[in-house]
Amino acid sequence: MGGDRGPAVVVAGLSKSAAQFPDVDFLLHGNETELRTYLARHADLNGRVRIVHAERVVTMSDKPSQVMRHGEGTSMWSTIDSIKDGHAQAAVSCGNTGALMAVSMIRLRKIKGVNRPAIACLWPSRSPGGFNVMLDVGAGIEAEAEDLLQFATMGASYARNGLALSQPRVGLLNVGTEEHKGRAELKVAHDRIAAAADVGGFDFVGFVEGGDIPSGRVDVIVTDGFTGNIALKTGEGTAKLISDFMREAFNAGLLSKFAALLALNSLKRLQRRIDPRRVNGGVFLGLNGTVVKSHGSADETGVAAAIGLAIKLARSGFVERLAARIASTGQTGQDLGKEGATSTAQGDGKNE
Amino acid sequence: MGGDRGPAVVVAGLSKSAAQFPDVDFLLHGNETELRTYLARHADLNGRVRIVHAERVVTMSDKPSQVMRHGEGTSMWSTIDSIKDGHAQAAVSCGNTGALMAVSMIRLRKIKGVNRPAIACLWPSRSPGGFNVMLDVGAGIEAEAEDLLQFATMGASYARNGLALSQPRVGLLNVGTEEHKGRAELKVAHDRIAAAADVGGFDFVGFVEGGDIPSGRVDVIVTDGFTGNIALKTGEGTAKLISDFMREAFNAGLLSKFAALLALNSLKRLQRRIDPRRVNGGVFLGLNGTVVKSHGSADETGVAAAIGLAIKLARSGFVERLAARIASTGQTGQDLGKEGATSTAQGDGKNE
Repeated sequence: MGGDRGPAVVVAGLSKSAAQFPDVDFLLHGNETELRTYLARHADLNGRVRIVHAERVVTMSDKPSQVMRHGEGTSMWSTIDSIKDGHAQAAVSCGNTGALMAVSMIRLRKIKGVNRPAIACLWPSRSPGGFNVMLDVGAGIEAEAEDLLQFATMGASYARNGLALSQPRVGLLNVGTEEHKGRAELKVAHDRIAAAADVGGFDFVGFVEGGDIPSGRVDVIVTDGFTGNIALKTGEGTAKLISDFMREAFNAGLLSKFAALLALNSLKRLQRRIDPRRVNGGVFLGLNGTVVKSHGSADETGVAAAIGLAIKLARSGFVERLAARIASTGQTGQDLGKEGATSTAQGDGKNE
Repeated sequence: MGGDRGPAVVVAGLSKSAAQFPDVDFLLHGNETELRTYLARHADLNGRVRIVHAERVVTMSDKPSQVMRHGEGTSMWSTIDSIKDGHAQAAVSCGNTGALMAVSMIRLRKIKGVNRPAIACLWPSRSPGGFNVMLDVGAGIEAEAEDLLQFATMGASYARNGLALSQPRVGLLNVGTEEHKGRAELKVAHDRIAAAADVGGFDFVGFVEGGDIPSGRVDVIVTDGFTGNIALKTGEGTAKLISDFMREAFNAGLLSKFAALLALNSLKRLQRRIDPRRVNGGVFLGLNGTVVKSHGSADETGVAAAIGLAIKLARSGFVERLAARIASTGQTGQDLGKEGATSTAQGDGKNE
């Protein structure tokens, strides 16, 4: 029921996904009467969607703390509960991010050993797969060294299962790549992540800068939720500015318009590579369940991308693999914390 | 002597500036023998440049703290001292940013009332003038509420003198525009900046997000040096990624290349609007002297832009105006801090 464009777009996105994944069934949470109207337009969804009626809706302006206390009976709450109750294997929402995280936290609970969940996004990049992972982009607004270590582990796990990278390269976001730069907690996190790389199944490339986020030298960028959210929105805003300027440039006169026509294929090829709809879907990491947050302004292509991502992660058994990885690195982290020793533990041999 | 491309490019940029500003003379700090070689190629600079010999050079990898203690005799130190001694009215350097800030701090000292200097950058935007100001982008790595208030005052002053905006619109960078969002110090800063807007001669638009940095709804974006630096480099990295992808798209096949030829004017028009060289120059704010940091990788066009910015600010009497503004808002800030009262003081009537 959430999102800036309302449920009609969600149902249209659902229809796109249903065509792509013929063996997946869907639960659609919200006002039954309203949803029936939209479903009626999509005969292809007949028999594949079950409506779970919910009386109330979480709005974009509701405070997360309020929704956490009084959110029962909303479509968001019902969606998360369907994972908790085992009726669904993954959840997708276009609604209020803070509220979705709050409801997910209290209904699904954190994975044992996780202190702070994170939201991971995909970023168009020069890496061979075309995308990098960045986290946290907004679950919290701060992170201690221990949290950043867990983000590294969780982000690497996501990259393995979501991007099929067997040994992801992890970088820690800072204002310079030299080891003496940045805040104190980053220096501590730097050393702990380096020590945990073996057990975590990733390579640690050290500090990376803002300019490296879309680069090919790293697959997973680790940062706190405040910085990550600012970076994500700055990147989106810059891309939007350039594409607007590009449109204006190609509309300035007859020759430009003619050139644009000829260049249509090139421009489309470019558009595909940086299309934000293709990378739609912030994944909640560290919870006992797969929750994907679609951008509030997503159109049906964006919604379908978020649903596809949720399906992919659910099928890979991602949450169980992540929990196992957290359990093993958590042990290393504790050893380090207590004894200040450099870990010599090796990977656990699982292909997670 | 600094910068990634060495002094030849600096001298070439100087030559460009000299043509643009026929009534300005220059002091060139560094190794006299080496600099003479480069100057010999530019007959136009005859009689307009005086070399100030410096034996040593600060490298890009030197630690700021070391340079601060042992930097005497370097070209960087000599450059800053030429402002201190009144031989120059503004300084430009392509060198090590941290070292430049450290040397500027101890040689020029902070303006009375300023707790933390800041580096301000220009950002291509949808604002009528085509640029927004953002600060701090890397002088420090953190900022208290009081510092953010001073950044607002200094950024507004810079926008008035550098962008000719009589009443700049100031926004505070956060992860959401709602007042309950973000870190505790941001909420305090929000209220203090709002209360100081009248005296500071700016309009406060409240919290802004990363996506607003290139927008037309704000002229000055205030944030701490860590976040600002990440945002700046993320924006630059994203713009670079898109322009690389664009080049690849237009090189993929004969028709695309032909289209690119036809679209050349449009592409050039686009390039001009987002050309990072046009906005080259991080201005140090809060010091008793005008120091402009050019990007280390700047070419001659970039160097000339940084020199032009320094000349413009020196001519406007910017440092004196800023000092006056800090004195009046500092008073307001203290009142607020001590009595928790909302300021009712009005502007000081000066046209700063």
